[in-house]
Amino acid sequence: MVAVKIASWNTSFVSVLALLASEAIASDPFPDCTTGPLSKLAVCDPSKDVLTRANSLVAAMTLEEKINNTQYQSPGVPRLGLPAYNWWSEGLHGVANSPGVHFEASGPFSYATSFPSPIGLGATFDDDLVKQIATVISTEGRAFGNTGHSGFDFWTPNINPFKDPRWGRGQETPGEDAFHVARYVYALIDGLQNGIGPAHPKVVATCKHFAAYDLEDWGNVTRHTFDAIVSTQDLSEYYLPSFRSCARDAKVDAVMCSYNAVNGVPSCADSYLLQTILRDHWNWEATGHWVTSDCGAIDDIYQSHNYTATGAQAAAVALNAGTDLDCGSVYPDYLNSSLAQSLTTIRALDQATLRRYSSLVKLGYFDPVKDQLYGSLGWSDVGTPAAQELAQRAAVEGMVLLKNTNTLPLAANKTLALIGPYANATSQLQGNYQGTAEYIRSMIWGAKHAGYKVKFVPGTAINTTDTSGFDAAVSAAKQADIVIYAGGLDNTIEAEGHDRMTINWPGNQLDLVQSLAQVGKPLVVVQFGGGQLDDSTLLSNDGVGALLWAGYPSQAGGAAVFDILTGHEAPAGRLPVTQYPAKYVDEVAMTDMSLRPGSDSVGRTYRWYEDAVLPFGYGLHYTNFHISWQKSKRGPYNTDSLAAHASQKAPVDTAHFDTFTLAVTNTGKVVSDYVALVFLTTDNAGPTPYPIRTLVGYQRAKQIKPGETRKVDIDVTLGSVARTADNGDLVVYPGSYTLQVDVGGKYPTSGFQIVGKEKVMDQFPQPAT
Amino acid sequence: MVAVKIASWNTSFVSVLALLASEAIASDPFPDCTTGPLSKLAVCDPSKDVLTRANSLVAAMTLEEKINNTQYQSPGVPRLGLPAYNWWSEGLHGVANSPGVHFEASGPFSYATSFPSPIGLGATFDDDLVKQIATVISTEGRAFGNTGHSGFDFWTPNINPFKDPRWGRGQETPGEDAFHVARYVYALIDGLQNGIGPAHPKVVATCKHFAAYDLEDWGNVTRHTFDAIVSTQDLSEYYLPSFRSCARDAKVDAVMCSYNAVNGVPSCADSYLLQTILRDHWNWEATGHWVTSDCGAIDDIYQSHNYTATGAQAAAVALNAGTDLDCGSVYPDYLNSSLAQSLTTIRALDQATLRRYSSLVKLGYFDPVKDQLYGSLGWSDVGTPAAQELAQRAAVEGMVLLKNTNTLPLAANKTLALIGPYANATSQLQGNYQGTAEYIRSMIWGAKHAGYKVKFVPGTAINTTDTSGFDAAVSAAKQADIVIYAGGLDNTIEAEGHDRMTINWPGNQLDLVQSLAQVGKPLVVVQFGGGQLDDSTLLSNDGVGALLWAGYPSQAGGAAVFDILTGHEAPAGRLPVTQYPAKYVDEVAMTDMSLRPGSDSVGRTYRWYEDAVLPFGYGLHYTNFHISWQKSKRGPYNTDSLAAHASQKAPVDTAHFDTFTLAVTNTGKVVSDYVALVFLTTDNAGPTPYPIRTLVGYQRAKQIKPGETRKVDIDVTLGSVARTADNGDLVVYPGSYTLQVDVGGKYPTSGFQIVGKEKVMDQFPQPAT
Repeated sequence: MVAVKIASWNTSFVSVLALLASEAIASDPFPDCTTGPLSKLAVCDPSKDVLTRANSLVAAMTLEEKINNTQYQSPGVPRLGLPAYNWWSEGLHGVANSPGVHFEASGPFSYATSFPSPIGLGATFDDDLVKQIATVISTEGRAFGNTGHSGFDFWTPNINPFKDPRWGRGQETPGEDAFHVARYVYALIDGLQNGIGPAHPKVVATCKHFAAYDLEDWGNVTRHTFDAIVSTQDLSEYYLPSFRSCARDAKVDAVMCSYNAVNGVPSCADSYLLQTILRDHWNWEATGHWVTSDCGAIDDIYQSHNYTATGAQAAAVALNAGTDLDCGSVYPDYLNSSLAQSLTTIRALDQATLRRYSSLVKLGYFDPVKDQLYGSLGWSDVGTPAAQELAQRAAVEGMVLLKNTNTLPLAANKTLALIGPYANATSQLQGNYQGTAEYIRSMIWGAKHAGYKVKFVPGTAINTTDTSGFDAAVSAAKQADIVIYAGGLDNTIEAEGHDRMTINWPGNQLDLVQSLAQVGKPLVVVQFGGGQLDDSTLLSNDGVGALLWAGYPSQAGGAAVFDILTGHEAPAGRLPVTQYPAKYVDEVAMTDMSLRPGSDSVGRTYRWYEDAVLPFGYGLHYTNFHISWQKSKRGPYNTDSLAAHASQKAPVDTAHFDTFTLAVTNTGKVVSDYVALVFLTTDNAGPTPYPIRTLVGYQRAKQIKPGETRKVDIDVTLGSVARTADNGDLVVYPGSYTLQVDVGGKYPTSGFQIVGKEKVMDQFPQPAT
Repeated sequence: MVAVKIASWNTSFVSVLALLASEAIASDPFPDCTTGPLSKLAVCDPSKDVLTRANSLVAAMTLEEKINNTQYQSPGVPRLGLPAYNWWSEGLHGVANSPGVHFEASGPFSYATSFPSPIGLGATFDDDLVKQIATVISTEGRAFGNTGHSGFDFWTPNINPFKDPRWGRGQETPGEDAFHVARYVYALIDGLQNGIGPAHPKVVATCKHFAAYDLEDWGNVTRHTFDAIVSTQDLSEYYLPSFRSCARDAKVDAVMCSYNAVNGVPSCADSYLLQTILRDHWNWEATGHWVTSDCGAIDDIYQSHNYTATGAQAAAVALNAGTDLDCGSVYPDYLNSSLAQSLTTIRALDQATLRRYSSLVKLGYFDPVKDQLYGSLGWSDVGTPAAQELAQRAAVEGMVLLKNTNTLPLAANKTLALIGPYANATSQLQGNYQGTAEYIRSMIWGAKHAGYKVKFVPGTAINTTDTSGFDAAVSAAKQADIVIYAGGLDNTIEAEGHDRMTINWPGNQLDLVQSLAQVGKPLVVVQFGGGQLDDSTLLSNDGVGALLWAGYPSQAGGAAVFDILTGHEAPAGRLPVTQYPAKYVDEVAMTDMSLRPGSDSVGRTYRWYEDAVLPFGYGLHYTNFHISWQKSKRGPYNTDSLAAHASQKAPVDTAHFDTFTLAVTNTGKVVSDYVALVFLTTDNAGPTPYPIRTLVGYQRAKQIKPGETRKVDIDVTLGSVARTADNGDLVVYPGSYTLQVDVGGKYPTSGFQIVGKEKVMDQFPQPAT
C-alpha cells in the first residue's frame, strides 16, 4: 500500500517511488483468459461486444470486490483470476514516473523518449507534430504496458487553459488560448488513442482537470479548498472548450475531475459538469468512457471543501455525480457505509465498475496478446531513432525568439561563456511529470556538439541572493567571444502545488545578466521554464543581444537550443501565453476567474488584456515574411444560410465557416517555418464588450524557402466566428468582422460581413438554480 | 392538485374526496396506442418484451417529465400521449375509497362488494377462502380500472403482524402470527394478481408497510417519528416473514415502505430493507417490481425523523434506497435539486421510472383492450350474486365464538331486545379502508330476516359515560325473550393514526351489559372491532350466556351474525390474536419491539406470553370433536438429510418437512367446520428461550358431519421446524419436538426427534455495522 498522503503525492514523489519499487514488478500484465476462472466468463470472449464482456465481469464480482476495485491501485479479484491493476500511469510528455509506471534500472524499459513539456509543444502551433509525438508516447506507453511496466491508462493531458501567469502547472499545458488548447488536445488524443474514438485505443488518455482548475496555492487558498466562481459565459467560452474538444470531438476514453470546486460544488461531485455537460451535452456517454478523480479529490470533498460532513457522503456524491474511480481511498473506505445509508446505489457502483472494465476490454486487456491490435509493441518500439529525432524536432519548433538585435545566429568556432543555473542542467530541462530519458542534452553538450569551446560558470542559482559566483561568471565572459546566459524558472519556483507570487525573474539572475551585459560581448539569454517572466529589462537592455524562450525542452533541450542559436534551424515558435508585466500580479487576484476586465481585474489573456510585455503569438524569425490575403471580397454571409448549412453537421460549432487563404512569401535569406495565426475582431457584431482579438485559425507552414510564396489555408469553423453569450450559448451575430494575421499589426487585414438575424448555434446547459 | 397534507390523508379524507371529485372522472383510462404519439414507441407494441416496451417510454421522457411522474397522481406526458395516472387505489377488503377510486353516485360502479376486514378473514384460517375473496376484489378492481373508476394498482394488503393489541390498524391485518400472516398473504396475492408471478397480473397488489410498522401514536411518538428498534432475530423471525412470503414467494408486484424508521433508518430510505433484504435476498428484483412510499413517508424522512436536513437529501436517499414512487411531493419538488447536488443519479430515477412503467406494461395498460387478458371485465362482473354470497360466507367463517353456556343457537320465533351501539350500525360494520357497498346488513336486518321480532334500543354509545339510555335498554330486555348486546370498538376508538391506550371495553358498555345480565334473560354479547378487548368480566359473568366476536364483518355483517346465532351456520373461526388482560398495556411499552419477555416486557404474542384472557387460536363450536394423530412414530429426522433434501428446493425454508395427518371426528350433533391448528414445541432443541408454542400448520376442514371422521393433512415446511437464531439465520436444531393440535391441551400430542448437527437453512443478511 502506498502510505503517503495522496493529495500531495508529487511532493512526496521520492517516497512514493521508494514504496512502489517493490510492487511495480514487470511481468505479463494480462489476465489468464485461457485456463483461469476468468476464461469461463464472456469477458474473455473477444467475439462478444464490449458491454457484454464487461458486464459479465461486473456481474461476477461481489459487492466487496466491486468496492475494493474502485481505487486506482485496484487489487483485482483473485477469486476470479482478475489481476491487480494500477490505473494511474502518467505520460504528459513521454512515459513518466508514476505509481503505475516502472522504469528498470538499466537495459530494456530503463527509459522512454522525453518530449518537451506541453507549453513548448503549444509554442510550436503545429498540430501534426503534436499528433506525431502523441503517437510515439502511446506506442511507448503500450510497450511499457504490454510488459507490465505501466498500465494502459495514462492520466494526460492537462488541458486547463493557462490563464494566470503565476500558475505552477501552466508548464503542463499548451497555453492560454481556449481555441488553441482545443485544437492541440484533439491532435494529441488522436495520437494517444490512435484515432478518433477507435474501437481499440492504443492507450487510454485522460483529459484533466475537469474543470476550471488553474490554481495551486494563493494566500490561504489551495487547490484542495479553492472554490472557483465562474460565470456561465466564461465556463462555456474559456474553461470548457478544450474539454469539449477532448471529450465530444476527440472522444477521449477518460476524464479526470479536479480538486477545486466550481461555483460551490467540488468538481468530482458536480453532476452539472460530469453528467449534464460532459456526458449529456457532449454526448460522451459511450461504452468505456469513464471519469477518475484527481488524487485525493474525493477526500477534499469532505475534508477540504467541507461540502459534505462525512466520507460516506463524499463517496456518494462523487459516485452519483459520475466519478467512476477514486484516486484515493474514500470509495473503498466508505462506499459500504454510503450504500448502507442509501446515499448511493449498487447500480451507481455497477455503472462505474462497468465503465472502467469496458475501457479495459476496449484496450484488449482481456484478449490474447496475439489478437491484440498493439500486442506486439515492445522494447524495440521505445526510444527509436525516429522518436529521438522527433523529440529534438519538437524542441526546436517550440523555441520562441523574443529578441534578436543582429546577434543570432551565432558565428561558428567561437569560445562561449556558458553561464547560469541552466548552463549545465539536465533533469531540470524536463520540467515536471517526467520519465527517465535515455539522455538529456545539456546546454554544454549542445554547445560542444555545435563545435564551440565552452567556459562554464554557473554564476548563480535559480533563486538566490548569493552573488559569490558573479565574479567568476564575469571573468569567463570576458575571456569568451560570446556569452550565453541560461536561466529562468524551474520546478523549485513553479510546480504542482506551488504557484508563483511574482512573475519577476527569481533571485539575482537579472543582476548577473546585467553584469554580463556590461562586459560588452554578444550576450544571448536563453530563458527556461513553463511560465513567462517579465522580460522588460532584458528587452530594453541593449547589452542583451538576443532572448530565446525554450520552455522545458527535455531530452534534446541543449541540442535544440544550439540548433537555433547556430542557425542550423530557424526559430518559428510563438508565445502560447501572454507575457504580462510584473505589476500584473497586483492587478488581479489569482482566485479571480473572470476573463473580461472589471472592477477587480484588468482582464486576462490576450483577448482582454492589452498591456502585455509581449503578446500571445509573439515570436521572431531569422528571416522576413510578406503576407497577403488571397481574396479580398468574401461574403456577406447570411446567418440563416450559415445555420442551415451548419445544421447538417453535428456538432454545429464544428461546421465549416470558410477557408481563408494566405500567401506567405519568405522575403529573407534563410529557410524558415512560419506560424500563421489568424485572429478575428469586430466592434459591432453582438453585444459589448468585444474582445481585443480572437484566434480563429492557425497553421505552421514548414520550411519556406527564401523567395518562396506558400499558400496557407486557414479553415475557420462556425464555432470560431460565433461568440459566447452571457448564458453560454454560442451565437453568430450579424456585423462587420476583420481578419488579422499575426501579431503586431504589420500585415494587411481582411474583412467580411455577416448579415441576417443573430442565430444560436449551441444552447449551453444552464446550471441548476 | 390535492392540497391537503398527505401525511395525515386519512384524517382529512372527506376533504381529499371533495377535492378529488372533479378529477376522478370515469372514462377510457388507457393511452391511445393506435394513433397517438405513443403509438410510435415500442411501449405500444405488444409483440415486444416488457422491458423493451417500458424502456422505450422512459427513453422518450425528458428529465422534467420523469420527475413530474414520480408522484402518485402522475400527470403523465401530454406531449407523448401518456395519460395522467393515479397510482393510489385501495382495496383492503373490496374496492375502497381512495384518491384513485371513484364510486358513481348511482347505477354502474356505484358500489363494490365489501368483504369482512382482514382481521375477520384471518379468523377464518381459510386460505382458499382468502384467495377466492382476493379473486373477486381483483375482478372488481380491474372492472373499476377498465372503466376509469380506479387505477390498476391497489395498495393492499397490510401485512404487518398485529403485535400490540393497542394498534389502531390491527383490524387491517389477519392477525398476530408471522406464519399465519405469511400463509394468508400468499393466498391473497395469488387471488389479487391472479396467480404467482403472472405475466399479466389482473391488478397489482402492494404489500405494506415494509417494515416493522405497527404503531400509530403512543405518548409523544407517532408513526411519523417512530424509530422501531428491532433485533435482527425479531426482524427475521417476526416482522419480515409476511413480506418474504408476499415478495419472494407470492411475487407481488409492489411493496410499500413505511413511515417509521427501523433501527435509525426511515424505512423508505433503508437500502438494507429495500435492496439487501427485499430485492437481493428475496430475489424480488424482477421486471415490473416496484416500491411506493407510504403517503408522506418521504416528507417524514427529513421533517419528522430529521434523518436528513433537506428535502433534496430526503428525496435522494429514498430514491437511492429503492423507493420508486413518492406518495407525496418530495420527489417532484426536490429531485431536480437532488440531481444538481449529485445526491442521486439520473440512472436511479430512470430505474424507478422503468420499474413503474414496466408494471403498467405487464398490466396491459398499453395494450389494445381487446388483447388485454382482463379487458372484458366490467360492471357486470362487480357485485355478482356469487361475490355477495362469498362476502356472507366469509363473514360467517370469521366469527369466533368465545363463550357459550347453553345459550346458542337461539331458539326461533322469539322477540329479541337488540341493544348497543352496533345494534343498528351499518357503515361501522365495515371498519376502515371501506368502499361503498350495495347494502350493509345491520344486526336489526339480520334479526328480522331470521324471523325474530326486534325491540331496538341503543342503550349507550361506543365510548360515553352517558347512562341515560340504560333504562330503556333494560326495559326492552325485560320485554324480550332474548337479549342481544352488540358493541365493542369502532373506528372512533381504533383507527389509522390512533392507537388505544387501554384494551378495556370503552365507555360504559360493560355497565350496560351488566345491567342487562341482571335482567335474567338469555343474554348474548356480540363484540365488534378489529382489536381485542379484555373480556374477563363477560366470560366470568354468568348472566352473559354467549359471547361472539365478529370483527368488522362488513356488508353481510348482521346477516352473518344471525346465521351463527340461529345455528343456521356453525361457528368455527379462531382468534387470530391473543386476547390480553387489561393490565397488559402497563406491562409493555407500545414502542417496545421485542417479542421475547425481558426486563421491560412481559413478552408478546402467544409464543411468548402465557397469561392471555383467551389465547391465539381460541374458538368454540356448536359441536365437539375428537382428534387423533394418524401415525404415532415419525422420524427421527436427520439434519443432513433434511438439508440435502431442502437444497433441491429454493428457497430452502419452503421445502417440505413432513405431512402430519389428523383424524378429526365430529362427535356432536351439528355439521361444523373445524380449524385444525398445529403447534410445535420443544424444550431442548436449540438455544433457550423456547417459545411456548409455534404455529406450523393449519387447515380449515369444512362441513364435517356429525359422526364423520375427516382426515386433515397438515403440510409442514422445513422453515416452520427451523428456529431463528440471534443473527436471523434459519436453523434446524437437533432435539425433541412435540406437536400439539388446537389450544387448551384437550387433544393428544405427538412428537418426533431431529438428530444430527444443527444446520443453517437460510443465512439472513446482516445489517451494516
